[in-house]
Amino acid sequence: MPTRTVISFARGVPSPDLLPVAELKAAAQRALDDDPAGALAYGDGAGYAPLRQWVADRYGNGDASRVLCTNGSLQGLAFLAEAMFAGSGGRAVVEAPTYDRAILILRRFGATVEAVDLQRDGLDVDAIEAMCRAGRTPGLVYTIPTFQNPGGTTLSAAKRERLVALAREHRFTILEDDPYGELRFAGTAVPRLFDLDGAAGTVIFSTSFTKTVAPGVRTGAMILPPALHARLRALATDTYIGPSMLAESTVHAYCAAGCFEPGVERMRLALLERRDALVAALDRHLGQRVTYVPPEGGYFLWVQFPGVDADALADRAAAAGVPVVKGSTCFIDGRGGDALRLAYSACPATDMDEGVARLAALV
Amino acid sequence: MPTRTVISFARGVPSPDLLPVAELKAAAQRALDDDPAGALAYGDGAGYAPLRQWVADRYGNGDASRVLCTNGSLQGLAFLAEAMFAGSGGRAVVEAPTYDRAILILRRFGATVEAVDLQRDGLDVDAIEAMCRAGRTPGLVYTIPTFQNPGGTTLSAAKRERLVALAREHRFTILEDDPYGELRFAGTAVPRLFDLDGAAGTVIFSTSFTKTVAPGVRTGAMILPPALHARLRALATDTYIGPSMLAESTVHAYCAAGCFEPGVERMRLALLERRDALVAALDRHLGQRVTYVPPEGGYFLWVQFPGVDADALADRAAAAGVPVVKGSTCFIDGRGGDALRLAYSACPATDMDEGVARLAALV
Repeated sequence: MPTRTVISFARGVPSPDLLPVAELKAAAQRALDDDPAGALAYGDGAGYAPLRQWVADRYGNGDASRVLCTNGSLQGLAFLAEAMFAGSGGRAVVEAPTYDRAILILRRFGATVEAVDLQRDGLDVDAIEAMCRAGRTPGLVYTIPTFQNPGGTTLSAAKRERLVALAREHRFTILEDDPYGELRFAGTAVPRLFDLDGAAGTVIFSTSFTKTVAPGVRTGAMILPPALHARLRALATDTYIGPSMLAESTVHAYCAAGCFEPGVERMRLALLERRDALVAALDRHLGQRVTYVPPEGGYFLWVQFPGVDADALADRAAAAGVPVVKGSTCFIDGRGGDALRLAYSACPATDMDEGVARLAALV
Repeated sequence: MPTRTVISFARGVPSPDLLPVAELKAAAQRALDDDPAGALAYGDGAGYAPLRQWVADRYGNGDASRVLCTNGSLQGLAFLAEAMFAGSGGRAVVEAPTYDRAILILRRFGATVEAVDLQRDGLDVDAIEAMCRAGRTPGLVYTIPTFQNPGGTTLSAAKRERLVALAREHRFTILEDDPYGELRFAGTAVPRLFDLDGAAGTVIFSTSFTKTVAPGVRTGAMILPPALHARLRALATDTYIGPSMLAESTVHAYCAAGCFEPGVERMRLALLERRDALVAALDRHLGQRVTYVPPEGGYFLWVQFPGVDADALADRAAAAGVPVVKGSTCFIDGRGGDALRLAYSACPATDMDEGVARLAALV
């Protein structure tokens, strides 16, 4: 049997051919030409001011004073978790399944993590309401409402309205983690929780340039109410003085030159092609043996194998050169043993059929 | 009276004219040309592999597996403090005076911080020994042995030997924070604590490219024993997946092209000129009213004003356009009220006399 190359469905990354290398090269030059001190001196703990303004204009209400740019959006979550839970504890709700690193961070800084089921139309808002009515109102609801990781699902517009109303009524904070929202390639856009909240400060918005520009720039951004912004900025300053100004000024130069939209559009087209190829391959090779919700954007498809030990399947798949993520790693309670997360973001469409065929042969 | 420009002795930064802008522009291009995926994809939590190797070759024993490159060296200290003290507490010794941000980080992650006096020849090693003999052995001794911040002093060779021997005998860890060690412009080099320790793993070495390349690259490095390296790498991964690969690959390209040594040599010459100008100005304008130890490298001169309220002086100086750092901010016990830290790194030699004259007029 010839040696097989690895076809990876494991990592939520863009494939190397999608990285805008030439544009970022030019952007780094402009950043160092136009603002050498800004790129190379210490900067503000809250991030590179022109990039904060760009984020405020695109994702906020234009108010850069509420924007915190960090070394990746996960670092922002770490600061938020430390600000909200370290020393005091408290309850954080996550989706089941959710992003495994978010669970780790919330727990690391002292939160008691509880999970609420993810449904076909996103987070089970009834369950959140029941928690609140039972006197167990969380301090924070961490949600990835759009093209969820790992579920691929999107919270419906009606549930979004209800969730924000609940948060206002019961005074909990929502963290809307939205690294994928720009990457819609099908269906109809729904409003962000942050937009439904308006200026109320109930919803913290988090995004990232990892999926829209490149992971290696390690630049994320949060939009926060003023008091939390001050607290997180102080934590950032006390952790690293300022984030990478070289990276943030390069990202800003990239965006200011108009590269952002075309880059995202390239990404959307590639992701659509890859999702379609993955769905076709699943239908061809696995058919009725699996169930899934086709995502309308983002990186991930969550596939359930009823009656199959998917943990063992994932181990065999890794050995067969088709790494995947075990569904069970995305739950806090041992569920997910019959599911896998398939990332189609890094897999060329032409490899998809072969990858799924290998996986199907192992079921 | 004409408006005066600000002459700052406050921040420990290189002045903008010392930033190697052209070299870093070229380095960013090479990094993106030679290794686009390395610069722009997610990287290892421990940092960009070629940079880790460069650090291992220059500062370690060539073993890159012990090197952790972080978003600034302060972030590395935060990981170390979390690994050593979070949840468990413990005793950390710092110098009095010391770097204020280090005190904040150690306390933030649960350490009980005690201070040991800084003498003309560095840390009071007798005091550490007395602590150990009294059954109060610290978990960590945090020291900046070379061109100390804020003291400007250097730990003598004899005391270095004793400190490492003590650490081995009493099994405490030494963190040798060495951002300034490359910047010797006078006197005779003394061995690093890390070198005296050999491969024993008693001494953790920390350095930074902030003072040798540029602050905005936000790249620091630690050399750690294997078990601690694994723990800090996991914390780094769980905090930001990987550090800024764009920044680290650019720093690596800069170093690999042979820019590091000439850049450091330029910095040394500028610092020597600035220190000489500062010392001459102090002697001219303040003479016997102050005492100080002339530093042989680094950024800082610590000046004592016997009988003067230096906190109030610092406030008047800021108002007069000569910002300085209050000595009292560098102690944990309210001492230092008769001292100031003067950073000469960012002040052109030609401004030094005017700056000190303004300060002297306020005493």
